[in-house]
Amino acid sequence: MRKVALCLGISIDGYIARRDHTFDFLFLPEDYSMQPFFDRIDTAFLGRKTWEVTKELGPPGSGEGTQSFVFSHQLEPGERDGVIFTRERPEAVVERLRREPGKDMWLMGGGELVRHFLREDLVDDLYLGIVPTLLGDGIPLFPAGFPQRDFRLVGHESYSRGLVTLRYERSR
Amino acid sequence: MRKVALCLGISIDGYIARRDHTFDFLFLPEDYSMQPFFDRIDTAFLGRKTWEVTKELGPPGSGEGTQSFVFSHQLEPGERDGVIFTRERPEAVVERLRREPGKDMWLMGGGELVRHFLREDLVDDLYLGIVPTLLGDGIPLFPAGFPQRDFRLVGHESYSRGLVTLRYERSR
Repeated sequence: MRKVALCLGISIDGYIARRDHTFDFLFLPEDYSMQPFFDRIDTAFLGRKTWEVTKELGPPGSGEGTQSFVFSHQLEPGERDGVIFTRERPEAVVERLRREPGKDMWLMGGGELVRHFLREDLVDDLYLGIVPTLLGDGIPLFPAGFPQRDFRLVGHESYSRGLVTLRYERSR
Repeated sequence: MRKVALCLGISIDGYIARRDHTFDFLFLPEDYSMQPFFDRIDTAFLGRKTWEVTKELGPPGSGEGTQSFVFSHQLEPGERDGVIFTRERPEAVVERLRREPGKDMWLMGGGELVRHFLREDLVDDLYLGIVPTLLGDGIPLFPAGFPQRDFRLVGHESYSRGLVTLRYERSR
């Protein structure tokens, strides 16, 4: 089955960005690569705000071949700027994609979309990169407001500059 | 120097307890022991609410020999029930204890006391035990409202049932 993997960098206190949406505190150490993760996905899911603050970095994933869905009630639906804007419910999109052949799907955030996915129990894998900083305030990856979801630890690794990755699978 | 170590179990989403102050989701695996940590401390710091919900478990640490301070503006100051109630500012207590010989000091929480300690930059070591659960709501270990504090990764270990410990030192 095509899985939905939530994969993001966060501070020790669980923030994906500062209040002003900057994320300068996140880093990718030289001995760490996103490529193995990018190789297993062909789809990315983003909320509108996450799309707005990351679009200048280029398309999600390895670029070509990754289909990105931006969930937004405000923006006009349709394909443009290399992504697909949609007003569909995420669970409908995920269910349809799971019936089609393909690779895994990357839930890129932000917090509001993550909460919706967790409410609907759509997250199969958690892949967190924890940078060694307490930010003290910011935009949380896991805003409160979804039922308890248990996971199974799959692995934990450390990289230079103190990055730790934690990998979990949903335990249903 | 006597260090202040924040050592606590949390969910993946950073909660020390459910909204009703229960913490049934936390566990200590058989292959994990708090004893090495208890051996390095002789002092514990608690907020009033944390004291109220943990006092039935017995005195903090290994028991005898650990001096526990409960910070409370409401309760009458003085020594009783095996702990010292105080209205002093935490930074004054820590500063005084650091001038006396002794072991390290355990910041047991809860979140409001942790925030105060982080505002005053009193936390030297972070020692987190992460249980493989997203709780979805609860009492956060790191409530927002303190300046950014950077740390250095010292170690990470995993134990049975998916507990991961992350150990950090303050990088000043």
